[in-house]
Amino acid sequence: MSNTQTKPAVVLLSGGLDSTTVAAIAREQGYEVCALTVDYGQRHRFELEAARRVAEWLGVRRHVVLHVDLSQLGGSALTDATPVPKDRSLDTMTHEIPVTYVPARNTVLLSLALAYAETVVAADIFLGVNAIDYSGYPDCRPEYIAAFGRLAALATKAGAEGRLDFRIHTPLIEMTKAQIIRRGLQLGVDYALTHTCYDPDAAGRSCGRCDACLLRLRGFAEAGATDPVQYQAAE
Amino acid sequence: MSNTQTKPAVVLLSGGLDSTTVAAIAREQGYEVCALTVDYGQRHRFELEAARRVAEWLGVRRHVVLHVDLSQLGGSALTDATPVPKDRSLDTMTHEIPVTYVPARNTVLLSLALAYAETVVAADIFLGVNAIDYSGYPDCRPEYIAAFGRLAALATKAGAEGRLDFRIHTPLIEMTKAQIIRRGLQLGVDYALTHTCYDPDAAGRSCGRCDACLLRLRGFAEAGATDPVQYQAAE
Repeated sequence: MSNTQTKPAVVLLSGGLDSTTVAAIAREQGYEVCALTVDYGQRHRFELEAARRVAEWLGVRRHVVLHVDLSQLGGSALTDATPVPKDRSLDTMTHEIPVTYVPARNTVLLSLALAYAETVVAADIFLGVNAIDYSGYPDCRPEYIAAFGRLAALATKAGAEGRLDFRIHTPLIEMTKAQIIRRGLQLGVDYALTHTCYDPDAAGRSCGRCDACLLRLRGFAEAGATDPVQYQAAE
Repeated sequence: MSNTQTKPAVVLLSGGLDSTTVAAIAREQGYEVCALTVDYGQRHRFELEAARRVAEWLGVRRHVVLHVDLSQLGGSALTDATPVPKDRSLDTMTHEIPVTYVPARNTVLLSLALAYAETVVAADIFLGVNAIDYSGYPDCRPEYIAAFGRLAALATKAGAEGRLDFRIHTPLIEMTKAQIIRRGLQLGVDYALTHTCYDPDAAGRSCGRCDACLLRLRGFAEAGATDPVQYQAAE
């Protein structure tokens, strides 16, 4: 990859730990990052602020924040009033499809990324899905990602005309959370900029007890590193 | 299909002639219509009003209007300042990908429909694509629709768990515009409720000269029927 001929890539950037690491990986691979953040009505709006901080830190070419109010469709604890589960065992959370599942979330995210990619003439789309820590989500599996890649070739003018050969990159898909964090730290990612918690307090501090916090904390512990984000004091 | 056990179906309803006919077909097949209108920042906002009128006329179970501002991504004459082409030959418009192409439009629409379908527990999604009059659009081809169907099975909790076997219905895909209109008239569709024009005037009257108007007018002529919508007076 030449530095004088930087290729654009669309990176789905939620502002969480995984997507921030993916963006750093894309940049390290020589891509010019076109970040896309989709605000789908999730409760954890601190993620959007985190996405803006991360995009600035990365020095992206462009950062688009799209609002798609999936809460109008209902169906997820992240977008409706269902309580976020707390203090679940890691075994339970990684082997069941959780209530925090958002219907067809990655399909919505990837379809918007595909539209963006065609517009900025990018063949490469990066998504921070993970099939190990989130094995309960159907749209984090490699066979799903492969099916979306086949669809992308048929779905677009650029694909149909052979001008863009879309590739969906999921560099984290087989990594543990600890491996992701180690990779990010190697690349100089400042994880203090990121936000992960499904249920932060009014000041944006993480709860430390939802599935996302528990996986993150375990990841930092296993990576032998300290999580720089602020957590709420135990009750 | 029993009338006592009505099954829900998600119908993508733009408010245009095709999607209105599709909704009438879904209803006639015994489905309870859950309409989804996506406002993707298109210029022809009269379509949205048409979608509301049609949904009311159909007596749908629920009508969700989702706003997704694809104009933030750029790339189409329908969402940016590029002029809508006028007075093109039917041969040109049906054998080239037009500038009114919206990047990955049907993928965005179908992904949102899939999220909605999973939420309302509907296995059936209806989309008014047409491979004859819109052969220039890559995401109107049967092979594209088949690829989305395969994706849907992998993309969702309901699909992964085998509770929903998603089917993408495209009853118009091999029909001419005249055949579509004849079918709709048989079903009692009031086409005065619909809106088709890419470039209406401030009163919502159709231009009669954009690709969409020309195809619609030719369709009514070939069907031996009169288009009940209002057209602007010729200059």
